[in-house]
Amino acid sequence: MATVKLVDENCDHPVVRRVFDDIKATKKIDRVPNIWRALATHPEHLELCWTRLKAIMQPGRKIDLLTKEIIALAVSATNGCTYCVNSHTAAVQKLGLDNEGLAEVLAVVGLYNQMNTLADAYQVEPDVRPEPR
Amino acid sequence: MATVKLVDENCDHPVVRRVFDDIKATKKIDRVPNIWRALATHPEHLELCWTRLKAIMQPGRKIDLLTKEIIALAVSATNGCTYCVNSHTAAVQKLGLDNEGLAEVLAVVGLYNQMNTLADAYQVEPDVRPEPR
Amino acid sequence: MATVKLVDENCDHPVVRRVFDDIKATKKIDRVPNIWRALATHPEHLELCWTRLKAIMQPGRKIDLLTKEIIALAVSATNGCTYCVNSHTAAVQKLGLDNEGLAEVLAVVGLYNQMNTLADAYQVEPDVRPEPR
Amino acid sequence: MATVKLVDENCDHPVVRRVFDDIKATKKIDRVPNIWRALATHPEHLELCWTRLKAIMQPGRKIDLLTKEIIALAVSATNGCTYCVNSHTAAVQKLGLDNEGLAEVLAVVGLYNQMNTLADAYQVEPDVRPEPR
Amino acid sequence: MATVKLVDENCDHPVVRRVFDDIKATKKIDRVPNIWRALATHPEHLELCWTRLKAIMQPGRKIDLLTKEIIALAVSATNGCTYCVNSHTAAVQKLGLDNEGLAEVLAVVGLYNQMNTLADAYQVEPDVRPEPR
Amino acid sequence: MATVKLVDENCDHPVVRRVFDDIKATKKIDRVPNIWRALATHPEHLELCWTRLKAIMQPGRKIDLLTKEIIALAVSATNGCTYCVNSHTAAVQKLGLDNEGLAEVLAVVGLYNQMNTLADAYQVEPDVRPEPR
Repeated sequence: MATVKLVDENCDHPVVRRVFDDIKATKKIDRVPNIWRALATHPEHLELCWTRLKAIMQPGRKIDLLTKEIIALAVSATNGCTYCVNSHTAAVQKLGLDNEGLAEVLAVVGLYNQMNTLADAYQVEPDVRPEPR
Repeated sequence: MATVKLVDENCDHPVVRRVFDDIKATKKIDRVPNIWRALATHPEHLELCWTRLKAIMQPGRKIDLLTKEIIALAVSATNGCTYCVNSHTAAVQKLGLDNEGLAEVLAVVGLYNQMNTLADAYQVEPDVRPEPR
Repeated sequence: MATVKLVDENCDHPVVRRVFDDIKATKKIDRVPNIWRALATHPEHLELCWTRLKAIMQPGRKIDLLTKEIIALAVSATNGCTYCVNSHTAAVQKLGLDNEGLAEVLAVVGLYNQMNTLADAYQVEPDVRPEPR
Repeated sequence: MATVKLVDENCDHPVVRRVFDDIKATKKIDRVPNIWRALATHPEHLELCWTRLKAIMQPGRKIDLLTKEIIALAVSATNGCTYCVNSHTAAVQKLGLDNEGLAEVLAVVGLYNQMNTLADAYQVEPDVRPEPR
Repeated sequence: MATVKLVDENCDHPVVRRVFDDIKATKKIDRVPNIWRALATHPEHLELCWTRLKAIMQPGRKIDLLTKEIIALAVSATNGCTYCVNSHTAAVQKLGLDNEGLAEVLAVVGLYNQMNTLADAYQVEPDVRPEPR
Repeated sequence: MATVKLVDENCDHPVVRRVFDDIKATKKIDRVPNIWRALATHPEHLELCWTRLKAIMQPGRKIDLLTKEIIALAVSATNGCTYCVNSHTAAVQKLGLDNEGLAEVLAVVGLYNQMNTLADAYQVEPDVRPEPR
């Protein structure tokens, strides 16, 4: 159960109103997801979070939206965040990724959670490095 | 400094020999990266790690190699693993991602490390869920 | 569901008895929270944990109790610990922090979970350092 | 070593210019810290990060600046981020916290990294909860 | 609720069939645990995970099975993974560890989650090092 | 570089003196490791940390000292703590674990960092549970 009372979808605080409407329009959904209703307990923080998320989670010049949602899922699975694993699995599914694609993503996520630990466990010094540019 | 003595590239243990040769052939490189030389202190574990990594890190039916390396970087950055951040940044760079693309990836990684925490901090219950299939 | 049977509040093991009584007296509560009842499956460990927590979680010479509970919440949210996020949100609330204050705290928690990742993701070397003294 | 070439402090890209100037004016410093020079490889992301950080890291209505920097340090220590532990230890020091105060902060950070793990390790169910409002 | 439909225990995909039978035979159980039924949505990944786990989770030349399960529990508690904390607590219990032994394990797990954080929080440089060999 | 000035080994503060002497006597070493010299910037916290660590890190009734150091290493590798990975690798080495034993430990650590992530990534519900007692 959330630690704050979720703000009502029909709340008439002008900032909340504006953000909630934009969330529904942008995501083409008719309900405001719980996370935004929790954040709305502080309207300025809600707006800060939403405008930044909106700016980042659009098709990039180099990275398309499906890849961005895959990255979001990889991060959420690594952090073990239940809310976000659910919402980003839903998002990649909506964008067309099937169970086989999901498993290909998660295989890589699992693999590098293992390999990261092994590199740290042996304190291996970096030898393969990018060329800073 | 690594906590074990890195195994020499020319080590003649048959399992190590076979894996080191395969690493160089598969990755088209002429040096064996440090992580594998650390793992080679236990040849069976080295082989287990390498064969599994090799099976996963090839172009998938649904996820291409660049996306896989991007996922690996997202996981490594989230875990703060120096060795792996370096090697996967090098990998995405080699596969053609420039600084702009890298920043688009990392913007998403940073964003969801924030959003994961906020979802946990407010203990928001999942409402956007995938349709299990 | 806890992985051990929670020890009964009225347990008469002398160490458990002493600690449970002290917990209730110190926190001015009439029930022993579940975490202590789980730890009581090993009375010496219970006592070790409680006496140390009690020593640290009192008003300090430099840091007051509300700030200490805020730090506890920041850590718990970063680790995604459900039990602790609940109990420390309750604690800061009891000490007078309202939803606006809570949001100000969590905004900073979310921000630095993002910024930590970005600093690690770019492997930025420290340049702003404290003066050790 | 950073994985990208840090952008020169005197870079004349208009967005970078504006943000760098604002960072120096806001923080009353005459050098741009490395993290911002790394982020400047993608000017829009730089601006997004900076404007959000600036909005959050000012004295709040409920939480003062020292407490915010303490939270930032607690998060950074929990995540083990070298860059951020250094810069936020410097920040709390600048705001007047001495070694004793620092130790009081870190004692709480250490304590709850332990207690979080124990609560998860025993899978204790929340019983002390805030009253959502 | 799992994000994919768990594969039926009687699924007749040849790879899934072979792995499920081997899991039941190896672990001497008559139901396939949920984690394997989730992984079975991608039979090759299932097989990769299972064969590797089977190779590692047998009595080693130097580390016995109970110690391996204790390590698995320590990792799972540190990561806060509900599924794995449950299954590895069950495993150590089955191998004879009672509540006192469990508490001795978890005391160490809690202690080092604290000490790790303090070492990172003060950015202490390593001085006690192994002799690489 | 540590963020505080490490306290001199010959410091004559009575609490620091007592703890430093006890550390050297207990561990049979003639230098005080850096972590304790950093903690000594707050003598009461130093004493709290040391007495608790000393109480836990002795041979238990159920878990011997080598197993405890192995657990400490597993936790430290999972958290990626450089200081602690070094000191606990040194500790298990001193207690007789060779490179093969170390690799057996780390194979399990790596495996469950992977499996934890996969269990969270698929949000698998616990079905194998201990019998609480």
